[in-house]
Amino acid sequence: MLGAMQDWPLLTSSILDYAARYHGTREIVTRTVEGPITRTDYATLSRRARQLAGALRRFGIREGDRVATLAWNTHRHMEAWYGISGIGAVCHTVNPRLFPDQIAYIANHAEDTLILVDPPFLPLLEGIAAQLPRVRGYVVLTDRAHMPATTLPGVLCYEEWIAGEDADFAWPALAERTASGLCYTSGTTGKPKGVLYSHRSCVVHALATNGADVVGLRSIDCAMPIVPMYHVNAWGIVYGAPMVGAKLVLPGARMDAESLYALLEDEQVTFTAAVPTIWLSLIQLMERTGTQLSSLERVAIGGSAAPRGMIETLERTYGVRVLHAWGMTETSSLATISVAKGGMPPLSAEQQLDLQVKQGRPIYTVLTKITDDAGRDLPWDGRTFGHLMVKGSAVASAYFKGEGGPVLDADGWFDTGDVATVDPDGFVQITDRAKDVIKSGGEWISSIELENVAVGHPGVAEAAVIGVAHPKWDERPLLIVIAKPGQTLTKEDVLAYLDGRVAKWWMPDDVVFVDDIPHTATGKIQKIALRERFKDHVLPGIAKPAAP
Amino acid sequence: MLGAMQDWPLLTSSILDYAARYHGTREIVTRTVEGPITRTDYATLSRRARQLAGALRRFGIREGDRVATLAWNTHRHMEAWYGISGIGAVCHTVNPRLFPDQIAYIANHAEDTLILVDPPFLPLLEGIAAQLPRVRGYVVLTDRAHMPATTLPGVLCYEEWIAGEDADFAWPALAERTASGLCYTSGTTGKPKGVLYSHRSCVVHALATNGADVVGLRSIDCAMPIVPMYHVNAWGIVYGAPMVGAKLVLPGARMDAESLYALLEDEQVTFTAAVPTIWLSLIQLMERTGTQLSSLERVAIGGSAAPRGMIETLERTYGVRVLHAWGMTETSSLATISVAKGGMPPLSAEQQLDLQVKQGRPIYTVLTKITDDAGRDLPWDGRTFGHLMVKGSAVASAYFKGEGGPVLDADGWFDTGDVATVDPDGFVQITDRAKDVIKSGGEWISSIELENVAVGHPGVAEAAVIGVAHPKWDERPLLIVIAKPGQTLTKEDVLAYLDGRVAKWWMPDDVVFVDDIPHTATGKIQKIALRERFKDHVLPGIAKPAAP
Repeated sequence: MLGAMQDWPLLTSSILDYAARYHGTREIVTRTVEGPITRTDYATLSRRARQLAGALRRFGIREGDRVATLAWNTHRHMEAWYGISGIGAVCHTVNPRLFPDQIAYIANHAEDTLILVDPPFLPLLEGIAAQLPRVRGYVVLTDRAHMPATTLPGVLCYEEWIAGEDADFAWPALAERTASGLCYTSGTTGKPKGVLYSHRSCVVHALATNGADVVGLRSIDCAMPIVPMYHVNAWGIVYGAPMVGAKLVLPGARMDAESLYALLEDEQVTFTAAVPTIWLSLIQLMERTGTQLSSLERVAIGGSAAPRGMIETLERTYGVRVLHAWGMTETSSLATISVAKGGMPPLSAEQQLDLQVKQGRPIYTVLTKITDDAGRDLPWDGRTFGHLMVKGSAVASAYFKGEGGPVLDADGWFDTGDVATVDPDGFVQITDRAKDVIKSGGEWISSIELENVAVGHPGVAEAAVIGVAHPKWDERPLLIVIAKPGQTLTKEDVLAYLDGRVAKWWMPDDVVFVDDIPHTATGKIQKIALRERFKDHVLPGIAKPAAP
Repeated sequence: MLGAMQDWPLLTSSILDYAARYHGTREIVTRTVEGPITRTDYATLSRRARQLAGALRRFGIREGDRVATLAWNTHRHMEAWYGISGIGAVCHTVNPRLFPDQIAYIANHAEDTLILVDPPFLPLLEGIAAQLPRVRGYVVLTDRAHMPATTLPGVLCYEEWIAGEDADFAWPALAERTASGLCYTSGTTGKPKGVLYSHRSCVVHALATNGADVVGLRSIDCAMPIVPMYHVNAWGIVYGAPMVGAKLVLPGARMDAESLYALLEDEQVTFTAAVPTIWLSLIQLMERTGTQLSSLERVAIGGSAAPRGMIETLERTYGVRVLHAWGMTETSSLATISVAKGGMPPLSAEQQLDLQVKQGRPIYTVLTKITDDAGRDLPWDGRTFGHLMVKGSAVASAYFKGEGGPVLDADGWFDTGDVATVDPDGFVQITDRAKDVIKSGGEWISSIELENVAVGHPGVAEAAVIGVAHPKWDERPLLIVIAKPGQTLTKEDVLAYLDGRVAKWWMPDDVVFVDDIPHTATGKIQKIALRERFKDHVLPGIAKPAAP
């Protein structure tokens, strides 16, 4: 027997409708790519998104078509999101920091037929346009006065393109499982793979993250997503903020600390979200200038682990509550958050930090477990680490076009590729990527934990740890170090520093010094390249294998 | 094109699974119907709900079957909810305060085959058992030691009944639109009609109300639903609290101020929800005893309008934030809440109260509008009142078995039967029930507003206003008054008091004094009975109509 409740589908357009109806005058402030700061509101944004929908339809975009964006966080990008998904097309947010060949690959893989692009990325597209035979048009997200010269074919000016369209365009009635967005994982190995969000997954995820125990957005908040909209939907904030009528501040292209700090203060931002490197630069700026944060109440930090010192500084020096979180493209961003639970014994300041350096406990709509290589559950003792598996309403069930094959196990769990511990309270701590963990005699050694300890050495600028083959232990850790300029480091120095800071059997079997460590476009260490570079490295005490 | 996200249905069992997994030791405290205060936790409650599910299956309960509960807010009632809906059966929460004939009517209408009942309600069932031929069993929600003697046939002892069942019972995979609960509106007119909730509507409603701008439950909260579980799902708290791992306090049968106050203090409750009459008695108790509320942070008040003085007292004298809300059985409880929006000008203390006496703005997943009798939209000016219409994911689309016919208009709006104003910020203020509004010369007069002014007269104990026929104006207001004991009141006294306090054309054409005003089982004035009693009342200055 079915319930007798209304069929009110969970669509992205319902969020914008709601915001326009009840929070129509609430501001959206953008540092435009052209330069000036502009202000609009939800009622206007809703009308312009409808005009864009009309223009897309007129261009021939139909339900299921993929429309790409190469854009910073701006009100026009937001209009693009709601306009594209509102008609049942798929908004493919492309990371403009990827290598041009990768962008060409994913635009072709997605079969994008139209690209909406910020002016600064036109040269990038000009360089690969010849590789994009399916693309029938490029819409430049600006007005006529700011249209740059370009060699691209089929160029349209966004403001002109939408100007004549109907601001009362009626959103079609879509099924809520209709695809709404597409985001490729940059991936340290293999080809990028697309995660295909649905309207339902976006709405449920935003409802869940707006909970008071998660991000807790309220109408009186002023939210500034520093994390880009091409990076897992700006962690959902561009859905969550209109859902409650919060003011939005969109920082555009300027990701430098001075520009971000100015927006935080000028607009009296109360909540923001960013990766740790952004916070590093903001803290450095504030330390240099002796400034404080006058309105910021809380920050979400994710993307990679927030160091303990950063959490401590933000909380104690700047009075900002840190919401350390974990998620990935495949989990629609935030899946766990490090917020204390009721019923825990009172925590000292240090214990509070111990808790906050963990990535936290799952929010409702997410379930987690850790397993060994055979898929058996591992204990939640805070020490044992295993494959982190997740389930939930906003977790991927497959990659776009089935790329990479099935991704769920027989019970429907998604393997995150992360290795983690879980403590008895259910708090997850990510210890490594599964492919980077070093398997030594059947036990696992976390490359990331070794790297984190190694960079504590005052002479070490950067450190990477990989496993190299070992005849007895299968693999043993090799520590690869870049010394700080002007420092002379020896293997013995470094190992002496590690001694006592890591378990005996975790001690790297060798240390090598290099001038550079390769990174991906999103700043992660390319361990695959390092493993290739050191594949013939012979650990001390091991006979060099005979040539095959 | 569909998104590639997991098919993770929004089921009530997923809430309890989550709570058991991540908040397993979080307490549920019950003042049992038997007397003592007992403590359990989410992990235990989850196991016992599964045992109950096994017992229900063994009894022959299948998906879609209706199982009734006649019970107070206790952990066993909560187990019943999750156990019944978990197997796809429908938990029919019966209001034990209804008249026995009404209970028999709805149990038969619902086709209940099994009734779970608290011991105090056994005599009630004994009186109507002969009218319930479909009921095959009565499960008494207690243990063997507390089983009362009863003449009911087919009586089972809850604790014995579930004891041998499998605590690891696997919940079946249900479609999320499966019916989960059934609640009849008591209705001041006509037969009670059933609202049939789905798993999806309950989960989405709980997600929405857990938002930081709504009820905002967190794991560190201790929530005590005073509002009964048979009264629109205890306003969703019994879903919302486990969804975040909040401690729950269930007050059982003792609704007196002393017992409730003791629980609030002893268990350090931070959030609670109740109708205004409960607050009246709690405030009276605290004034009498000179006590305060040491832990309570916020309260949701709904069911009927919270008087301004009550809001002021709770906020200023007791430091408790008042969340004035509106909702109905057909909206799964809370649909609007009186929480200030961002972007509003700063409010003085009086303006803040002005805002809080309104029923508030819709939460996301709800849309509202007001219309005239012809269905045309009316302006949101805070003065014009019209039919309050709602839409949303947790709003009824029909009554059970189609009772009363279609309830949605052509655009899918549900007519709440309430008459309201909406101000430019979208805040709803309920002014009357549509059937009670007095239609005078094409304009509407609010009976409730007149009543509220009239009871301000120091000699008036209670007041009711109904419309009576008028040859020129169609209807004019008649004020019906109970004088306070020992007071001598005249029509002229009362009208003099109203003069200047209500618009001239709202002035009642007549005042009559009575010894009693009839009420429904849920405490509402029975206007239908008053209209019947005064159907031949002749207003002054009107010629008595000739007998037909």
